[in-house]
Amino acid sequence: MKLLLTGFDPFAGEKVNPSWEAVRELEKEGIDGVEIQAICLPTVFGQAIEIAVQAIEEKKPDLVICVGQAGGRSEISLERVAININDAQIKDNKGQQPVDEPVIPGGPVGYWSTLPIKAMVRAIRETGIPAGVSNTAGTFVCNNIMFGILHHIAQKKLGTRAGFIHIPFLPEQAVNHPGRPSMTLDAVVRGLKTAIMAAVNCEEDEKNPEGKTH
Amino acid sequence: MKLLLTGFDPFAGEKVNPSWEAVRELEKEGIDGVEIQAICLPTVFGQAIEIAVQAIEEKKPDLVICVGQAGGRSEISLERVAININDAQIKDNKGQQPVDEPVIPGGPVGYWSTLPIKAMVRAIRETGIPAGVSNTAGTFVCNNIMFGILHHIAQKKLGTRAGFIHIPFLPEQAVNHPGRPSMTLDAVVRGLKTAIMAAVNCEEDEKNPEGKTH
Amino acid sequence: MKLLLTGFDPFAGEKVNPSWEAVRELEKEGIDGVEIQAICLPTVFGQAIEIAVQAIEEKKPDLVICVGQAGGRSEISLERVAININDAQIKDNKGQQPVDEPVIPGGPVGYWSTLPIKAMVRAIRETGIPAGVSNTAGTFVCNNIMFGILHHIAQKKLGTRAGFIHIPFLPEQAVNHPGRPSMTLDAVVRGLKTAIMAAVNCEEDEKNPEGKTH
Amino acid sequence: MKLLLTGFDPFAGEKVNPSWEAVRELEKEGIDGVEIQAICLPTVFGQAIEIAVQAIEEKKPDLVICVGQAGGRSEISLERVAININDAQIKDNKGQQPVDEPVIPGGPVGYWSTLPIKAMVRAIRETGIPAGVSNTAGTFVCNNIMFGILHHIAQKKLGTRAGFIHIPFLPEQAVNHPGRPSMTLDAVVRGLKTAIMAAVNCEEDEKNPEGKTH
Repeated sequence: MKLLLTGFDPFAGEKVNPSWEAVRELEKEGIDGVEIQAICLPTVFGQAIEIAVQAIEEKKPDLVICVGQAGGRSEISLERVAININDAQIKDNKGQQPVDEPVIPGGPVGYWSTLPIKAMVRAIRETGIPAGVSNTAGTFVCNNIMFGILHHIAQKKLGTRAGFIHIPFLPEQAVNHPGRPSMTLDAVVRGLKTAIMAAVNCEEDEKNPEGKTH
Repeated sequence: MKLLLTGFDPFAGEKVNPSWEAVRELEKEGIDGVEIQAICLPTVFGQAIEIAVQAIEEKKPDLVICVGQAGGRSEISLERVAININDAQIKDNKGQQPVDEPVIPGGPVGYWSTLPIKAMVRAIRETGIPAGVSNTAGTFVCNNIMFGILHHIAQKKLGTRAGFIHIPFLPEQAVNHPGRPSMTLDAVVRGLKTAIMAAVNCEEDEKNPEGKTH
Repeated sequence: MKLLLTGFDPFAGEKVNPSWEAVRELEKEGIDGVEIQAICLPTVFGQAIEIAVQAIEEKKPDLVICVGQAGGRSEISLERVAININDAQIKDNKGQQPVDEPVIPGGPVGYWSTLPIKAMVRAIRETGIPAGVSNTAGTFVCNNIMFGILHHIAQKKLGTRAGFIHIPFLPEQAVNHPGRPSMTLDAVVRGLKTAIMAAVNCEEDEKNPEGKTH
Repeated sequence: MKLLLTGFDPFAGEKVNPSWEAVRELEKEGIDGVEIQAICLPTVFGQAIEIAVQAIEEKKPDLVICVGQAGGRSEISLERVAININDAQIKDNKGQQPVDEPVIPGGPVGYWSTLPIKAMVRAIRETGIPAGVSNTAGTFVCNNIMFGILHHIAQKKLGTRAGFIHIPFLPEQAVNHPGRPSMTLDAVVRGLKTAIMAAVNCEEDEKNPEGKTH
């Protein structure tokens, strides 16, 4: 079982991006029976997709899990869907700020995560770490990479399963954002590890109610 | 210019649904140059779509705006996209609680609102009422009706523009939800009126950055 | 029954302070059997107290209700206690930024509101407007004026009852603070009117549980 | 240097109270130059005070730090003040629910923490853990114990410095409170250790602006 794991470099003035810290720690620790490759993507529209797609082409992973920072969220959140739009309130790391442009011109409105997100959420919670399903990955680079990868996999008819996981600020980041929740790197790494193992072991997702009224 | 305006009946133990209160008030007040028909939909998966579709068939409106309650949100929020999933944490008003079932089997992942949501948000704000773009309408009956109507319009190749607007609790509801924001019926009605006029007058949407990082 | 009602001028970059808008509207509308005098205090440590104390000396009101803006709160909140500390994160309107200085050197740690806050909260809620008891008025000018007035009344052994009410942003302010709750001026005025009538009619407060665990 | 460290037993349906978990871990780990005694207080009005006072009488600590759970807060929060009121929205662990009764009849309105809270907050943050000053410890058993201990120390004219620290839910608790922030036990223990060392080493507090506008 080959796993491509991606994190991002810091953006929006942060000195660290917990997603890269977590995935490189996971690569170092390793998971039995899983060959992990961790890469750090630039927080740049389009370019992140190119690098990830190239890694998929080269390594032919069975599973792709992209991880990104969601400053302000309190739990590990499994994204359900990516949408075909870039709408940035801030500049990306290359100075781009696309507004209402498609990720892939002519592409569909959205792609579902092909990870067993309900099973992953349940597994993370069972280890005592807060997790949930999210119905929006935003319209910045996180959604961009999720859409781009799922589109590539769909176009090429690869069997690869893929999806996106948002994680909270680290405590050392939250120090500068009073009132914002945080999660220690250790807890994030344990949560992601559990989620990965659930994804590896679960072919068909569970149908647990995890919806939102709005 | 014919406008079909829908609200919902109360759900989740509430005694009132601000969406129906607002749209029937709007129908009563009227808007110059706009023929408004307001209907109250049941908060019921599928059935709400049937009733709305029937009204579209009969009245052939130019514009369909569905309104629903988003208890906990603080602003009038214009939904950008509907997704093809029903995932209910609570029962609807007929006792149904679908989990991870498509709104329309075989349908696409999502539909974009065909309302000029950015222009509408700007117009509402200019009247001094908080408004924003939302990237998720949830996975309950609000998303269900938005997806169902947009699918019908797409299938029948109608020119009708359509979308969904979420509104906060009324103050009298928030009394029973300590700490939750609210908006008076009067402010909601003024905000919706402004939004409708913007939709009537704006063919092509504005490209204002209103995205979210997550 | 003579009532001194105070609001504040705008601070922290706002163009309006809802507290002054509300109290001057209340003075204009009037309340049967209550002689209202509304004054606008500067958002300035110490100076606000001086002006209010002078008005108390001159007018000899039976009741003093000071009102202030609490941007971010969603309800009308009745302050339970004022504490003898100034600790400012931002400058006041005269450029002062005291840190950990007493309001009144040698004064007690705190003063209780002498308004029937529980009865007032219940009355406001009964009119369908969100209200609550707050256990902190902060450490800026709002707490400063509340402490200063209660200290003056205690020192002079006046029979005057006095206290402080915090109110949310107006909708037109919340437009510039995305995600923050707001309350229309009309709702605030109705809520304050109800609260004042409750204070006028209620000598001894009700014992309704309105505490917080933290 | 002798330190009395108190935590509470679980309340409000929780299976664990992070405050007791943290203080007993701290006692086990130890701090160089500090003789720590950790005790678990019942979440019971009055009774908690009696037990803590008895421990103070017996052990004659130089420092008393009481710790309690603040479910919903995201940071370690140093309480500035305790107020002379019990106002419970829920029953304590003995079934008591006092409303608007004084902690100490005839006592003052409030007592300041005699810990160097600003120095402690700064020190915790410097280790990368979110911390802040809080101006209300609520009106439940946490405020009750803080007031009770400070009153005892004041009455007996002991030189003991004392105060209260609120901590977030543990991650395993937040699993059952979706959307609520949490902090791992390890981070809480490191934060408290840092805070204790700051309290031991700092006689006079720093004057850093940590106030709130409301």
